[in-house]
Amino acid sequence: MKLTFRPYTLQLKEQFTLATSSRNTTPAILVEIEQDGVIGYGEASLPPYLKDTQESVSRFLSNLNLQQFCYSHTLDEVLDHLLKESRDDSAAKAAVDIALHDLYGKQHNVALHKLWNCNLSAIPPTSYTIGIASEEDIRRKTRDADQFKLLKVKLGRDTDKMIINTIRSVTDKPLCVDVNQGWTDKHHALDMLQWCHEQGVVFAEQPMPAEMKNEIAWLTERSPIPVIADEAFQRLSDLDEMAGIYSGINIKLMKCEGLGQALKIIQEARKKSMKILLGCMTETSCAISAASQISSLVDWTDLDGALLISNDCFDGAKLSDGRIVPPDRPGIGVLPI
Amino acid sequence: MKLTFRPYTLQLKEQFTLATSSRNTTPAILVEIEQDGVIGYGEASLPPYLKDTQESVSRFLSNLNLQQFCYSHTLDEVLDHLLKESRDDSAAKAAVDIALHDLYGKQHNVALHKLWNCNLSAIPPTSYTIGIASEEDIRRKTRDADQFKLLKVKLGRDTDKMIINTIRSVTDKPLCVDVNQGWTDKHHALDMLQWCHEQGVVFAEQPMPAEMKNEIAWLTERSPIPVIADEAFQRLSDLDEMAGIYSGINIKLMKCEGLGQALKIIQEARKKSMKILLGCMTETSCAISAASQISSLVDWTDLDGALLISNDCFDGAKLSDGRIVPPDRPGIGVLPI
Repeated sequence: MKLTFRPYTLQLKEQFTLATSSRNTTPAILVEIEQDGVIGYGEASLPPYLKDTQESVSRFLSNLNLQQFCYSHTLDEVLDHLLKESRDDSAAKAAVDIALHDLYGKQHNVALHKLWNCNLSAIPPTSYTIGIASEEDIRRKTRDADQFKLLKVKLGRDTDKMIINTIRSVTDKPLCVDVNQGWTDKHHALDMLQWCHEQGVVFAEQPMPAEMKNEIAWLTERSPIPVIADEAFQRLSDLDEMAGIYSGINIKLMKCEGLGQALKIIQEARKKSMKILLGCMTETSCAISAASQISSLVDWTDLDGALLISNDCFDGAKLSDGRIVPPDRPGIGVLPI
Repeated sequence: MKLTFRPYTLQLKEQFTLATSSRNTTPAILVEIEQDGVIGYGEASLPPYLKDTQESVSRFLSNLNLQQFCYSHTLDEVLDHLLKESRDDSAAKAAVDIALHDLYGKQHNVALHKLWNCNLSAIPPTSYTIGIASEEDIRRKTRDADQFKLLKVKLGRDTDKMIINTIRSVTDKPLCVDVNQGWTDKHHALDMLQWCHEQGVVFAEQPMPAEMKNEIAWLTERSPIPVIADEAFQRLSDLDEMAGIYSGINIKLMKCEGLGQALKIIQEARKKSMKILLGCMTETSCAISAASQISSLVDWTDLDGALLISNDCFDGAKLSDGRIVPPDRPGIGVLPI
């Protein structure tokens, strides 16, 4: 197996505003793993709030020796080697994991969602993010989102109620909210979640800072809607702790080290009766198509990442009836453009 | 692909007594599917309370044409053809599904549990059934079950409390109860479930007749322990109805048409926040090893079926630390003895 990679800068169609920052691009690294002429594609997306950077990913990939693996090694063995390579580097590992799974699917002529017995008709609609903006812009964005069945709102500023009221002046579609740790008073947070519930919000991500564990547990117990861990949840080893604090988790391939670990997390979270959101960063259709392979296994998806960039370099998963549906091709199903 | 089959009679080590019948043998059909010298093994176990018989399975298998399938067909396509062959014949389909999955795993040199990213360390302990018997026999059987961490008791007669009290005089291990539709008064059933809960019973299977849907829904709402559908639940198409009546379901490969459908049922049941028990009939280590491939995905297992027969003709999944653990071999991992 031969691994190559190159940096790529994702151009955002619109400026991306969270509670804490704004930006116009997302750095990424594109990965290829080749074996006897078959190529598996992978991607690391590296928004600034992740520990991984283009530099750290490049360093990790340069040190990773896949040449030692041949057909006598199972995918399982290669993934095991990958995960043990370092303690961190979750996005770099996700990129390699995606490329290895893509290669495996192509070598065995099977789409991953078929390999894993996933039922495509059970894929939940993706949410589509209406960013923090002026009332007029919010109305326009809401109207423009007519292809989507679930709208996501970034809260955590003093404009929270204005944003939701403005959206509600245009549509009665279900909403979800991502507070990005923006609320710090648990009583205010509970008031807001109750108000959100009355406005047709179906779940809330990371309402308070991840380190305020006791307050979030208090909030989850009282909240009328599920409280989902995002910043607080990275990977499988975090799951046990989450169960006592949150109703569910947001799994993102870039946080959790790839598809193999994501599947394990889903299995364990279900045993703990936890809700599951499958999310993404801004990503090309490469990483989004990878995520779409397992999207029928979760309660909600937030896989609009490739729709937010103007320079997608893969043809892959497509929006269909409000859902991001994987291509009917082997592996993750992408074709480079 | 070439399919062959033969009848086989499973000899039970001890007479098997349910609320409604007793027996010493279970009819079965053993299946082989061969492609270029590689053989996949499957099994249909046919206890008398299933619709399928050795005759109906033989008829189904004789009519099934797998010769039309070659390497250019995906496993998915063959399974699809299998399921559409008839409306019923769930055990016959399970036998073919198991053999096809075994063949696939061997052809790709991968154990199915690895293909499906299952975490073997998450396999729950199997229950071991203490049959309806005299007090002395129950004490002996309970003491003999020292390798097991969860004991299952068949209730539904006038001896219910005696049985549990007798077991409790020997051990404080967790118990589960299978009433096999034996209670018909919902108030009595609730009293019993509350009493069972106090005795350390962790779930109850089919406390009342499957057709008493309103009464079971009433019971489930009030029960201190999960109420699991067994006789009421056969396959994927039954799942929607179960969600409003029971806390969870008992999935058995022989009922649900095999591994492919079992995986789909698990995925859908989890979205409905339902509990899952993975059960079995009396079966050889062939069908038990197949079930063990997915056992890490469920809350409880009841996979003692091969331990109850004296003429097991496969080496396969083994009891280890109270759990039925799949072999570390490709496919379902069995070797004919």
